[in-house]
Amino acid sequence: MTALEIGVIGGTGAQGKGLAYRFALAGHKVLIGSRKPENAQRTADEINDRLGVPAATGGGNLDVATRAELVQVAVPWDGHEDAIAAIAPALAGKIVVSCVNPLGFDKAGAYGLPMPESAAEQLQRLAPTARVVGAFHHVSARLLWHHDGPLRHDDILVAGNDAEAVEAVMVLAASVTGKVGIRAGALRLTHQLEPLTAVLININKYYKVNSGVSVSGLRVEV
Amino acid sequence: MTALEIGVIGGTGAQGKGLAYRFALAGHKVLIGSRKPENAQRTADEINDRLGVPAATGGGNLDVATRAELVQVAVPWDGHEDAIAAIAPALAGKIVVSCVNPLGFDKAGAYGLPMPESAAEQLQRLAPTARVVGAFHHVSARLLWHHDGPLRHDDILVAGNDAEAVEAVMVLAASVTGKVGIRAGALRLTHQLEPLTAVLININKYYKVNSGVSVSGLRVEV
Repeated sequence: MTALEIGVIGGTGAQGKGLAYRFALAGHKVLIGSRKPENAQRTADEINDRLGVPAATGGGNLDVATRAELVQVAVPWDGHEDAIAAIAPALAGKIVVSCVNPLGFDKAGAYGLPMPESAAEQLQRLAPTARVVGAFHHVSARLLWHHDGPLRHDDILVAGNDAEAVEAVMVLAASVTGKVGIRAGALRLTHQLEPLTAVLININKYYKVNSGVSVSGLRVEV
Repeated sequence: MTALEIGVIGGTGAQGKGLAYRFALAGHKVLIGSRKPENAQRTADEINDRLGVPAATGGGNLDVATRAELVQVAVPWDGHEDAIAAIAPALAGKIVVSCVNPLGFDKAGAYGLPMPESAAEQLQRLAPTARVVGAFHHVSARLLWHHDGPLRHDDILVAGNDAEAVEAVMVLAASVTGKVGIRAGALRLTHQLEPLTAVLININKYYKVNSGVSVSGLRVEV
């Protein structure tokens, strides 16, 4: 895959930082975005220290979205609409990947919020010409940052309506798992992918693990 | 696990028949239910021929629900409410497992229907004292029937509010996969489990496979 300049919006959060690290490790240039540029720069420095090469730089979310060739959105669901509205013009025509999970939590655990539109669909509505793709919802932030080597046991499920954008993100997925991602269907399938993370969070709590998703049966003969 | 008398409502459909076969193979007695008892008996005969022992018998759905110790609901979503209403009194106090997936299909593929309540929640509303558990949504009907041996690459995700019922179904899952199922959270998580099958159907179409779900990271160290 050609090295890209990838902007990570919300790149100081655990999922954004973990993905940024993996993208940089795979040879991409990474722009860490945050509402506070100084926090973004701190995360970029942390990634660069880890890699031993200056692959990451920090900046404000709008600045990063403007400069990036491909944008990864990793902001919390709480505040998602405002965060996207603030950068929407900069997303025009670009591949924009969302890993945002709209979840609720109470004493019975995590659950998917009832959603008239998924987070990725909201992004698409706010940035109508962006080439929106849903992916990277299920990879453990902790494993992204701490696990040594590719997350080979995980599959990255990729949903979107723009076939070329989906294929680009399937290839990008290899920077996380060491293998091409799996085509999950149209963008509306993000209604299924996003809240599935609630199941994984419950599993993590019960079993004290860092779970993810793998698709079985791709090689099973009948 | 103690051998149970398991009633499969909608047991002539592909998922119901496949599960009934696996339950019978594991030593349980299986009651195949259908709206038409003669069709149910034909499926029971097919299972018995395959096993070489008379493990299955057929009957009407209400008759089967009444006689069974544990009930597996495997009717199509279309008609689910009427099918459950017709057997609801017979479900009182029993463990009732739902693998029903409310899905839509169009030329862009499969997708989860927008649902104010999941199929399992609808079942719980119609049979308030039933011990409802969601499980077996993602195992391929084709592999259940045709694959030789346990579906070891699959995990059975089990959701429910009744802890003992969940644990019983986690153990029952071993009759399909050769290993205990995985606790996915409260019954409301069936909102996530049921429509995930749409993703698998899309994957099956793209890749010409019989996919299922496996949880990764249960044994990954950081």
